[in-house]
Amino acid sequence: MCGIVGLVAKSLVNQTIFDALTVLQHRGQDAAGMVTCEGNRFFLRKDNGLVNEVFRTRHMKRLMGNVGIGHVRYPTAGSSSAAEAQPFYVNSPYGIALAHNGNLTNAEELVEQMFREDLRHINTTSDSEVLLNVFAHELQHQRKLKPEPEDIFEAVSKVHKRVKGGYAVVAVITGYGVVAFRDPNGIRPLIYGTRSTPEGEECMVASESVALDIAGFTRVRDIEPGEAIFIDMDGNVFTKQCAEDTKITPCLFEFVYLARPDSIIDNVNVHQARMRMGIKLAEKVKGLRPDHDIDVIMPIPDTSRTSALEMAKHLNVTFREGFIKNRYIGRTFIMPGQTQRQNSVRRKLNPIELEFKDKVVMLVDDSIVRGTTSKQIVQMARDVGARKVYFASAAPPVRFPNVYGIDMPSPEEFIAYNRSVDEIGEAIGADWMIFQELDDLKDSVSEGNTDTICDFDSSVFDGYYVTGDIDTAYLDRLDEKRKDAAKVVPETIDHEDEAPADLHTEIS
Amino acid sequence: MCGIVGLVAKSLVNQTIFDALTVLQHRGQDAAGMVTCEGNRFFLRKDNGLVNEVFRTRHMKRLMGNVGIGHVRYPTAGSSSAAEAQPFYVNSPYGIALAHNGNLTNAEELVEQMFREDLRHINTTSDSEVLLNVFAHELQHQRKLKPEPEDIFEAVSKVHKRVKGGYAVVAVITGYGVVAFRDPNGIRPLIYGTRSTPEGEECMVASESVALDIAGFTRVRDIEPGEAIFIDMDGNVFTKQCAEDTKITPCLFEFVYLARPDSIIDNVNVHQARMRMGIKLAEKVKGLRPDHDIDVIMPIPDTSRTSALEMAKHLNVTFREGFIKNRYIGRTFIMPGQTQRQNSVRRKLNPIELEFKDKVVMLVDDSIVRGTTSKQIVQMARDVGARKVYFASAAPPVRFPNVYGIDMPSPEEFIAYNRSVDEIGEAIGADWMIFQELDDLKDSVSEGNTDTICDFDSSVFDGYYVTGDIDTAYLDRLDEKRKDAAKVVPETIDHEDEAPADLHTEIS
Amino acid sequence: MCGIVGLVAKSLVNQTIFDALTVLQHRGQDAAGMVTCEGNRFFLRKDNGLVNEVFRTRHMKRLMGNVGIGHVRYPTAGSSSAAEAQPFYVNSPYGIALAHNGNLTNAEELVEQMFREDLRHINTTSDSEVLLNVFAHELQHQRKLKPEPEDIFEAVSKVHKRVKGGYAVVAVITGYGVVAFRDPNGIRPLIYGTRSTPEGEECMVASESVALDIAGFTRVRDIEPGEAIFIDMDGNVFTKQCAEDTKITPCLFEFVYLARPDSIIDNVNVHQARMRMGIKLAEKVKGLRPDHDIDVIMPIPDTSRTSALEMAKHLNVTFREGFIKNRYIGRTFIMPGQTQRQNSVRRKLNPIELEFKDKVVMLVDDSIVRGTTSKQIVQMARDVGARKVYFASAAPPVRFPNVYGIDMPSPEEFIAYNRSVDEIGEAIGADWMIFQELDDLKDSVSEGNTDTICDFDSSVFDGYYVTGDIDTAYLDRLDEKRKDAAKVVPETIDHEDEAPADLHTEIS
Amino acid sequence: MCGIVGLVAKSLVNQTIFDALTVLQHRGQDAAGMVTCEGNRFFLRKDNGLVNEVFRTRHMKRLMGNVGIGHVRYPTAGSSSAAEAQPFYVNSPYGIALAHNGNLTNAEELVEQMFREDLRHINTTSDSEVLLNVFAHELQHQRKLKPEPEDIFEAVSKVHKRVKGGYAVVAVITGYGVVAFRDPNGIRPLIYGTRSTPEGEECMVASESVALDIAGFTRVRDIEPGEAIFIDMDGNVFTKQCAEDTKITPCLFEFVYLARPDSIIDNVNVHQARMRMGIKLAEKVKGLRPDHDIDVIMPIPDTSRTSALEMAKHLNVTFREGFIKNRYIGRTFIMPGQTQRQNSVRRKLNPIELEFKDKVVMLVDDSIVRGTTSKQIVQMARDVGARKVYFASAAPPVRFPNVYGIDMPSPEEFIAYNRSVDEIGEAIGADWMIFQELDDLKDSVSEGNTDTICDFDSSVFDGYYVTGDIDTAYLDRLDEKRKDAAKVVPETIDHEDEAPADLHTEIS
Repeated sequence: MCGIVGLVAKSLVNQTIFDALTVLQHRGQDAAGMVTCEGNRFFLRKDNGLVNEVFRTRHMKRLMGNVGIGHVRYPTAGSSSAAEAQPFYVNSPYGIALAHNGNLTNAEELVEQMFREDLRHINTTSDSEVLLNVFAHELQHQRKLKPEPEDIFEAVSKVHKRVKGGYAVVAVITGYGVVAFRDPNGIRPLIYGTRSTPEGEECMVASESVALDIAGFTRVRDIEPGEAIFIDMDGNVFTKQCAEDTKITPCLFEFVYLARPDSIIDNVNVHQARMRMGIKLAEKVKGLRPDHDIDVIMPIPDTSRTSALEMAKHLNVTFREGFIKNRYIGRTFIMPGQTQRQNSVRRKLNPIELEFKDKVVMLVDDSIVRGTTSKQIVQMARDVGARKVYFASAAPPVRFPNVYGIDMPSPEEFIAYNRSVDEIGEAIGADWMIFQELDDLKDSVSEGNTDTICDFDSSVFDGYYVTGDIDTAYLDRLDEKRKDAAKVVPETIDHEDEAPADLHTEIS
Repeated sequence: MCGIVGLVAKSLVNQTIFDALTVLQHRGQDAAGMVTCEGNRFFLRKDNGLVNEVFRTRHMKRLMGNVGIGHVRYPTAGSSSAAEAQPFYVNSPYGIALAHNGNLTNAEELVEQMFREDLRHINTTSDSEVLLNVFAHELQHQRKLKPEPEDIFEAVSKVHKRVKGGYAVVAVITGYGVVAFRDPNGIRPLIYGTRSTPEGEECMVASESVALDIAGFTRVRDIEPGEAIFIDMDGNVFTKQCAEDTKITPCLFEFVYLARPDSIIDNVNVHQARMRMGIKLAEKVKGLRPDHDIDVIMPIPDTSRTSALEMAKHLNVTFREGFIKNRYIGRTFIMPGQTQRQNSVRRKLNPIELEFKDKVVMLVDDSIVRGTTSKQIVQMARDVGARKVYFASAAPPVRFPNVYGIDMPSPEEFIAYNRSVDEIGEAIGADWMIFQELDDLKDSVSEGNTDTICDFDSSVFDGYYVTGDIDTAYLDRLDEKRKDAAKVVPETIDHEDEAPADLHTEIS
Repeated sequence: MCGIVGLVAKSLVNQTIFDALTVLQHRGQDAAGMVTCEGNRFFLRKDNGLVNEVFRTRHMKRLMGNVGIGHVRYPTAGSSSAAEAQPFYVNSPYGIALAHNGNLTNAEELVEQMFREDLRHINTTSDSEVLLNVFAHELQHQRKLKPEPEDIFEAVSKVHKRVKGGYAVVAVITGYGVVAFRDPNGIRPLIYGTRSTPEGEECMVASESVALDIAGFTRVRDIEPGEAIFIDMDGNVFTKQCAEDTKITPCLFEFVYLARPDSIIDNVNVHQARMRMGIKLAEKVKGLRPDHDIDVIMPIPDTSRTSALEMAKHLNVTFREGFIKNRYIGRTFIMPGQTQRQNSVRRKLNPIELEFKDKVVMLVDDSIVRGTTSKQIVQMARDVGARKVYFASAAPPVRFPNVYGIDMPSPEEFIAYNRSVDEIGEAIGADWMIFQELDDLKDSVSEGNTDTICDFDSSVFDGYYVTGDIDTAYLDRLDEKRKDAAKVVPETIDHEDEAPADLHTEIS
Repeated sequence: MCGIVGLVAKSLVNQTIFDALTVLQHRGQDAAGMVTCEGNRFFLRKDNGLVNEVFRTRHMKRLMGNVGIGHVRYPTAGSSSAAEAQPFYVNSPYGIALAHNGNLTNAEELVEQMFREDLRHINTTSDSEVLLNVFAHELQHQRKLKPEPEDIFEAVSKVHKRVKGGYAVVAVITGYGVVAFRDPNGIRPLIYGTRSTPEGEECMVASESVALDIAGFTRVRDIEPGEAIFIDMDGNVFTKQCAEDTKITPCLFEFVYLARPDSIIDNVNVHQARMRMGIKLAEKVKGLRPDHDIDVIMPIPDTSRTSALEMAKHLNVTFREGFIKNRYIGRTFIMPGQTQRQNSVRRKLNPIELEFKDKVVMLVDDSIVRGTTSKQIVQMARDVGARKVYFASAAPPVRFPNVYGIDMPSPEEFIAYNRSVDEIGEAIGADWMIFQELDDLKDSVSEGNTDTICDFDSSVFDGYYVTGDIDTAYLDRLDEKRKDAAKVVPETIDHEDEAPADLHTEIS
């Protein structure tokens, strides 16, 4: 998961991009980057760390220009290197910088192809660098001294033909403007909006509508699957559908967990979708145990709060905040001669004892992946006196890998791997375990937009991959890579001690 | 406001102190510091920034020893300098490092006195440096080669006689152990707990019980007003009442806003106290407007969530999360030639439109100080379609300065300054404004501990100062200083660009 | 002026390149950079600062691979930006990193041409980025999947045809090896050598032979004007003459001042050349004033020591070190509210009073450009009691701009501008002023290699530019740019406070 | 070895102290520090690194005030920790910061004594911290609210009675001024001078007169052994002899190697003393081998240049610079899995082949300690073709440890340990080895000041310790400590990777 933003404005864009990245930070806390463009010159700053850490006053002073793009990165097992922060840059043609959210499923073939056809060298394992070079290659082939919107759209069309996977992309072309586009299945979100200023209209594209909100932009609409938007240096906006056979099958996990509740994705209000998930959970409880003995319903903060609240309301059960989330992120240092400590859930959550004492509590989480945290939470609830601990997941069991940009562990590590629902409950120590039905989950979301949403990328739940190119061989290869990567990636990183030294990201 | 922690353990303390400071971070995000002690040697690391930023692997490696103290600092108008992070250190006698939470109201006299009596130089404007030197002076006067617990308690007794104000203090004495004490009125909180390890018992003192929780310590009890606790290097715990005429009058604002909900202060569960605040607010609503037209009750996240939830429940009104808080802190950069932007509340909160549309909303906040944020929030609610906006404060109007360690603006800047409740409502644009009654607030807290809590420091609400030494002259002087400080302190600071160069805190 | 090095070895190259850059540091103290290549991956580290400052342990750990290039940069008025450290990189074709020493006189035309022909974007004002793109363009045009040495030499041939000026270049091509070449007039120096290891032969190219010395490489020979050398990944060495009408006309200033005395350039021992300069100065003195009254001859350390010693010997006059050079570089900080202090020569040199007292001293410097330092030195000699102060320059008066990579002030700032030799002496306050004759200077050098050196680039002395393309219009434009740049470039820079934020060099 | 400076001026002192430290940098490149004082407030900056690295613009901006002291530190085996940079600070009495050059031979006893008498804690192993506390203790005992010069001198007198060793000290007392003093044997140098400004006279004390020179101060005179100087805040200068039985026995090694040639120490011109060393060496050669076959005399740069030049002149032998010193300091990085490389002398010196070819060369060095470098240099001379290699040392063989502040290896590591002169020559591979006679060396220096210099600390040559308190037991203990320290101290340190975390020096 990553967050992206692109902006063509009438004055300096650095602060606005910074603000937008800050509210997109939930989509990636691993690295951040920004490219701005003034006249014929690019300025880049990127590094591992939070937005707040990566951009200091001295960097902002150098990020000149009224046009730019930004990125926040989620750490992925396959490419956790500090050297692979985005945006990436190529100087040929025109000078292009690009950032993206998603994952290409044919990146390796493209790397080879690109070298063979165009002698382009890819220096990292990031598929953003691949995507940038594919786009650059297609644009260069047209050999236009001054590319028109049509030329750029033409290049995007060719990109859609060559790359596979889920992706939302934003790029800046020196001297011409910002281009953004979304994969033909609309798996990853992308939205745009405008802001009026005395100097003229400004346009922003971003992963989520909250980025528009914070900067005072008015939401215009989602970029459609396969569609591209181009904003030239003067702020003129052009859009075009650049793919065939497109459909809106957004990633279901965005609504379950990834997106901010105050975002609107593909016309669905995320907050409302989560409320509906809670209602449907309540109905399931009623159906299964009409005479349930639940005393109190509690969310595992923060994501599941919305669902849990509605669930409680519809069951007419008391809702309480039993766990307090530690807002400030800790870190485990490994002293010489020490072995790594158990990374306890206590570092993240603290229970309020009196809310548990002698009660039957129903804990609600958005979803369960590995289940290790859930298990610790259940135990913690017991430790502070809960009589019984029930556990509800607003999403169905996660059983399949994600190949469209959400980093997940190897399937064997899923708690649901080879386990029935009851077995899962047993595994995490719950007295009762319930999961949302997949159809209920889909309905929770699609009820928000019955017009255009066809279906979803629900692959992590049902193993169905909308791009149609994912086979067992691919998944096995992916799993192998994940396991290899997992071996070398340490659990906790002090960024400062892990300075990169590569072509595009250097820390002194 | 600050947070403090002290620890005598059986193995390295650096990670545990780091963890404790992380969960106390809400008490101060301005600076952090730690001193550890190994054998006869102190190790110090302190700097402006979050706990996570101040302590990096290379610092942790140097923070050796099984004994130590830590501190997080809240920025105060009077001493915002980066050079004044805590702990402070003096080498005479014994080598002592000290950190504190609170404020001395006679610091200036003490500085003079200390120079006159003992030629001790105070190099900063921090009253922690003053407190440290008073304590050091008293300890030195006993001229013991090896101070016994009684000697240390004797010194604390003398400190209580000389210093005035509210304070919770933790100090480490090289080669002897950790001492902690609390002011005779118990204004600032201090608690301790123990943890069993195979090597023996470990003891921690901290501002709040959450610090004990995260590290797996069991809460023993609050340090009593005027009491001191001394833990020697072997982990033996000694306590003694070191003051006369003590009483428990804890700061009411800890329960309203400062403390974490999952903390227990003076035997009062903060979470439960806040629930009672919500209930009493509900009763007030019922009394004033039995036929109210409230459609939905919403907290201004995060503190007021507990109160708002109970208020909604007792009024049988729908509770909803209408505002989403931006979890990641933004920053406003001032570019050359730019003037500073308005610091909009939008950077902190984002409304979910559909929860407001055509509704009568009751917004609940923990308290109102300046009212500028409240005003913007009310406007924001209207902008997204609220039919009427009501506003409830879980605390009474803030009308008087705090002199015990909570930094507040000048009284004239309070929205309640020279305004009735209705006028306050009008000033923030609310259709209806209600405040908690002071007695209700006090009851909300004291119902949690009817045994030992006598009264509260409720000075910000009623102007009554429990230490009995605060007169108009003092308050005027304080106000003058605050205004002077406010003139030079910029609103946003990029710590890195403001490197200190003083005796105890240097950044390269 | 810059220094370059390229290396293909049998084990890690980072330490050897570091060492080589350290002994080439006299050619540029402004910035340093290194690219290494392992497998298909490049690693880059570059920044403003000394070699020692730029490369820290954490960077070295990342600079993996047995192949690499390095660069030290001299600050030039036109491109002093921190963002323009070398090497530069392009990913198409193959991935190429390049560094160079020298100056292109047709860089601006090339930038335009390159965009027109190839849509290549140049993001800085550095002509190294231009050179890299020209080379990349020519290599790409051959469209070879695997370029053979012949293909690379072909590309170099085309570069020679397109670019004008003086240049010595080193580049690494991912997966293929290191290529280096020298301009057809041999203005800038370039030499190579080999080292035997148990694993096979290693090859280094460098600006000066001292880089070979320190790393234990045996000097093989200078790269000839127009010649290119290619060392493949296995260490096989290929060379080819890639230009027509080549001639060896090395920059005379290398021998006067730039090069280390222990270097051998175009088969001329620099140390010996400088000794001959001293002898010829002695002869001139004898000719002009056979009965001179010189008591003592002193060098202005360090460069002129060699000449001054021989001059003294041949005049049979006592040689003394009258000035002690401050080895550690100072810096002038500008405090808020202060105006900049005069940058006194005292920060660089300190006279030993007793060596001057009542004596007639002949001061010897390698050359005189602005004359401001010379004037201060003469005055300093008088201040400590010299009876008469004579001044000898081992080079003729500098009267013309350098366009081949040596940064100099605007001609009007030369002390020799519109002044006769006597007037220069008067201007700097000397009682007698003598300059080397140009022919004597040329002879001093060419006597070391009468076989192959045709002539010299002596443009700064006589205004004759060997490349034949320098006209008044060009020089006027250059002067204009220099003056503009001078306006904004501060005299002293604290690198740390001037962090870059561009595509290739970022400092956190 | 260290360098110190103290300054009371009429405007900001930070730049002048910076400049002074820069020209004293040869006395210590390990760490640097500065304390300034404005009003009642101290500002400190200290860290490992060169002056240029430690003080950046942001630090200088904070180093406010017209009064201050500075220090550069030489790394010593016993206290190489980054945490022990100077000045040190105590807040009681008055606030005092102190820095010193030298070594106390009874530091351990003092640490104990001070704790017993005064409960003062010493947190490092630096004897500067000890000295500071002794001084502070003595000053405090007088209990003066405002100390007069006499009080300060009284305290210095008591310091002289308690501490033993060689020391030159500078301290600043908040609000009162700068005090400096020198040990009763005058082992370590200390000098002062004044500068007139429109605002009044300014006064500087420093280790060497060059510090006065660079800042435009006029040398007044050396501080006498046992004497103290006090400059109050208004610039009034007071001096007083504070010890009995004083004598001037300066460290002979200052003249041989440590001091800058342009310094004047105890009225002896160092440059001239070194010239006399060369003359006496020449006479010894004439005496021993009237028909010597020396073709050329060469210094091992830089220190021996002065001696070698005069030696050559008096022998009427050609003088040549055969070795070029690498001005820029290299560093050896240890890559994972690598073993440390031999630290070759080639990293420091490069021979000019033609000066050696077939010649009989006499190499001149200032002194020989371990002899490892000398041996490599002799071999290097042979490698480039020298027919015979002779070696002269301007000082006698070093055979005994230094206890007054010059860090040296363990005596067994001295090349002269248990070896005759011929055996030393053989050990380093020289065809002829000659050493200066001790009496000749003493004469070389004392001829410069026959009035007041009684004798010298020549202990490293003859084992005679002027303080009279050094016995075999002490030396054995010292040796033991040195060996222990040597085990843990790595040869090369990347300062940045070794950040300290202690009470007085922190690096973020």
